[in-house]
Amino acid sequence: MTKLHNYFRSSASFRVRIALQLKGLAYDYVPVHIARGDHKTGPFAQLSADQLVPLLETDDGQHFSQSMAIIEYLDETHPEPALLPRDAAARAHVRALAQSIACEIHPLNNLRVLKYLVRELKLSEEAKNDWYRHWVREGLVAFERQLAASPAGRFCWGDTPTLADCCLVPQIFNARRFDSDLSGLPRTMAAYEACMALPAFQAAQPSQCPDAE
Amino acid sequence: MTKLHNYFRSSASFRVRIALQLKGLAYDYVPVHIARGDHKTGPFAQLSADQLVPLLETDDGQHFSQSMAIIEYLDETHPEPALLPRDAAARAHVRALAQSIACEIHPLNNLRVLKYLVRELKLSEEAKNDWYRHWVREGLVAFERQLAASPAGRFCWGDTPTLADCCLVPQIFNARRFDSDLSGLPRTMAAYEACMALPAFQAAQPSQCPDAE
Repeated sequence: MTKLHNYFRSSASFRVRIALQLKGLAYDYVPVHIARGDHKTGPFAQLSADQLVPLLETDDGQHFSQSMAIIEYLDETHPEPALLPRDAAARAHVRALAQSIACEIHPLNNLRVLKYLVRELKLSEEAKNDWYRHWVREGLVAFERQLAASPAGRFCWGDTPTLADCCLVPQIFNARRFDSDLSGLPRTMAAYEACMALPAFQAAQPSQCPDAE
Repeated sequence: MTKLHNYFRSSASFRVRIALQLKGLAYDYVPVHIARGDHKTGPFAQLSADQLVPLLETDDGQHFSQSMAIIEYLDETHPEPALLPRDAAARAHVRALAQSIACEIHPLNNLRVLKYLVRELKLSEEAKNDWYRHWVREGLVAFERQLAASPAGRFCWGDTPTLADCCLVPQIFNARRFDSDLSGLPRTMAAYEACMALPAFQAAQPSQCPDAE
C-alpha cells in the first residue's frame, strides 16, 4: 500500500492527507517526528533526499516529495475527483492561489525558521510570534484580494475543493494555533468553513493522526 | 502582445522571462520598481490582486500571477518545447525540484523578508547576510542531494531545460550576489552552466533587462 511519511502537525503533510482523503485513496501512515529532528537523523534521512515531510512512497518503491508536486501527481494518476480545473486559465489561477500560501506564507513560518529566529537570532517568544502573525496576516489579506477577484464559489475556486483548498485549510489551522488575526477575510474563511464541512478535511486534520500529541 | 509586469532583479520574474524565451514568445516588458515599492502604490497595485511580480497580462486582458503557475500555463498553452516531462512520475520530480527552490529557499530571502529583518528585527548587515547564506546553502545542499538521486542528465532533469532549471538559475544568480558558498554542488552547478550556455537564459538575465541598474 502507498505510504505517507508525515507528521501530524506539518502543514505540508496535512495538504497531502487532504488530497488522499478527497481521492479516497487508502495509505499507510508513517510518522516522522519532525520536532524531535527524526527527519535528519533517523532512517527517514536515508530514505528522503530532501529530508522533508511529506514523502509519498508508492507500492513500486518510488518516492515523491514536495506537497504540491505530490498532489498534482495524485491528480494526474487518479483523476477523480479532480483537484484542478480542466481549463488552462482556471488551472493557473488555482495553482497561483495554492502557491500564494505555499510560497508566500508557509515557508516563513515553518519549524526550522522559527527555530532559527530563537536559537540564532535570539528573538523573544513575543518577537517570534509577531513575525509569525505578520506574514500570516499579510499573506491572507493578499489571498483574500485574490479570492475577491475570482468568480463566486463555495470553495477557493468554484464549487468543489481544489489544490488551493488543500493548501488553505492547513494554513488556517496554523494561523489559529498562533492566534493570528483572521478578521475581514470573508471569502477565505467561507472557503475554509466549506472545506471543514466535508468528511475528507475532517479526517485529515492533525487531531485525527495516529501521532497526534 | 502579452505583457510581463516584472522587475529585473526579481528571481520569480527571471523564472518567467526564461520560460518565455525558451518558448520563443515575444512580450512587452513592463517594469515595476519593487525596491521603490511601486508594486504597492502605483497603478500596478490596482492591476494585481496579490501585488507581486511577475504578473502576466494576456492579449485578452487576463492576469496570471505566481511564477510557477505562469510557467505551467505557458507550457499548457504553448506545449513546445516542453518544460515538463510527459510521464507523471517525472513531472512530479521536476515540480518537486522547482518547489525545493521556490518554497524552501527563495521565500526566506526575498526583498520584503530582508527588509523585515533590518527594519523590524534591527539585524546588522552581517546577521542579515548570514541569514541569507544559511538558507541558500541549506537549500542548495538539499537540492544537490535530490539531483544526485535523479537520473543522469545535462540539466536538472534530463537533457533539456525544464521548470526546475527556470527556478535554479535565478537562485544561483541571487546566491552569487550575496556571495553564498556554492562549493560541493557538482550536479547543481553543471545544470546551471548548461543553462547559461543557452541563448534563452542569457537573454532573460537581469543585466539584459530594460530596467537593469
